[in-house]
Amino acid sequence: MTAEGGTTRIALNSMRVAYLGPAGSFAEAAALRYAPQAQLLPCTTISAVAQGVATGTADEGVVPIENSLEGSVTDTLDLLIHDSSLFIRQELVLPVEHCLLVRPGTRAQEVRVIYSHPQALGQCRQFLERHLPGASLVAALSTSAAAQQVHETREPAAAIGTARAAELYHLEVLARGIQDNPSNATRFVVLGHADHPPTGDDKTSLCFSFAEDSPGLLYRTLGEFARRNINLAKVESRPTKQSLGQYIFLVDLAGHKEDPVVKRALRGLQRRVSFFKVFGSYPRYRNAIQ
Amino acid sequence: MTAEGGTTRIALNSMRVAYLGPAGSFAEAAALRYAPQAQLLPCTTISAVAQGVATGTADEGVVPIENSLEGSVTDTLDLLIHDSSLFIRQELVLPVEHCLLVRPGTRAQEVRVIYSHPQALGQCRQFLERHLPGASLVAALSTSAAAQQVHETREPAAAIGTARAAELYHLEVLARGIQDNPSNATRFVVLGHADHPPTGDDKTSLCFSFAEDSPGLLYRTLGEFARRNINLAKVESRPTKQSLGQYIFLVDLAGHKEDPVVKRALRGLQRRVSFFKVFGSYPRYRNAIQ
Repeated sequence: MTAEGGTTRIALNSMRVAYLGPAGSFAEAAALRYAPQAQLLPCTTISAVAQGVATGTADEGVVPIENSLEGSVTDTLDLLIHDSSLFIRQELVLPVEHCLLVRPGTRAQEVRVIYSHPQALGQCRQFLERHLPGASLVAALSTSAAAQQVHETREPAAAIGTARAAELYHLEVLARGIQDNPSNATRFVVLGHADHPPTGDDKTSLCFSFAEDSPGLLYRTLGEFARRNINLAKVESRPTKQSLGQYIFLVDLAGHKEDPVVKRALRGLQRRVSFFKVFGSYPRYRNAIQ
Repeated sequence: MTAEGGTTRIALNSMRVAYLGPAGSFAEAAALRYAPQAQLLPCTTISAVAQGVATGTADEGVVPIENSLEGSVTDTLDLLIHDSSLFIRQELVLPVEHCLLVRPGTRAQEVRVIYSHPQALGQCRQFLERHLPGASLVAALSTSAAAQQVHETREPAAAIGTARAAELYHLEVLARGIQDNPSNATRFVVLGHADHPPTGDDKTSLCFSFAEDSPGLLYRTLGEFARRNINLAKVESRPTKQSLGQYIFLVDLAGHKEDPVVKRALRGLQRRVSFFKVFGSYPRYRNAIQ
């Protein structure tokens, strides 16, 4: 092994990555994909992940930002908009694969209770109606907590969770990919103290809002990008948290904030809005479904 | 009582309104506000509400569409986009007031377990940390189900739910308005077979998408409204459910689809998009916080 290889390994080994836990969550899978050799630190909330990075307990943090079925993860967006001085430095897209987990030896016909987070129960509704119509559904705080409950209970129960949760809680995977919609994927972002240098194939995420509401304001603002031929990967609005009628707009655009044309567009944007924040520039993720 | 009054009352009495249940939910409160004398029919899912109206089991249906903290209710948006031939004919905005519910006589200091939907637990996090730091949080499928669990359990427990749920399950309200953010409001829509005739102060909700992605498409499309001085109350994007990179845009605009200027804008829009659907025109709700 070369000296450089050794150095790299040591650097990766000593990196601490916070993630939205508990162990066995989809965010842990994303953190493992991003930094397989890092020390992983589970946090109970999205804001605890950010706080861990902000205070130096962790070097970087991995949180979900968007799901193809559920839409945006509002806690992450609100954190980026209102509370955080951290930057997005990477994105990762992972397919969501819900599994039916039981204690080893339990057969599907015996299952009377199914534990999971209400969202996971909802995403597997058709599978459950077809294969386990008699079982009752019980809410859990997370898919991992559900796996733990199945591990601890004596009744014939199942959990909906990740294959990794099965490993952690000594459960058996009875069925894989039981979600009703096969194209269920979650986008995660890695938060750090600086964003990523330009790579030539980058994205930039930002938000803005207007002090007053007048027809055409959003239209003229988006013109700063359209006129420079900058493609918008996403436009979204979030209520400001003050009132249902006021919105903050979130935009993902193709390009890096250091690209001269993007720089000019951002300067133009800034003149038209009352609030403006760049969440970061980072390489576009190119390996969506594996 | 006049004959007309009598007629109106009979019509209201015989109207059947489906809502996202169970009894004691926020949607029931919205349905009661909308049609106090109607027969209310609780449904277990948002799509069951729509199906009830579509098949004639109910005349109209009340579902949540947006919360000021959580953002859009994606099940309702996806139903309007993909599955439903129903129209939005009314909107209602109700403040969300989470209450701490216990069996009569239970004191706050005794509470060891707190049941609620994970979203309600999250919205009251600061209150719970300050006043009930030792209690463990247990997920329930709904705030009403949580109230029912407290009614049935023997341990000193509390639920987070509506004051109405306290009535239904013979519980006592220990504290009101315990949500961390006081400006927490939910917007509901009433679905029916036709939308509302023009009143002079209306909104129109619609969605559209593009077959291909090219810089400036959204910009030029929004120009159809900007150029006609039509104000957009909301612009939002949702993943198409096929892939994370493709979006359907949702717009709420000021005006009725029968207004000549809106009509012209919609015709212009239609020429620029590959998919287009008007969810309905309805009177703007003017009594947000009571």
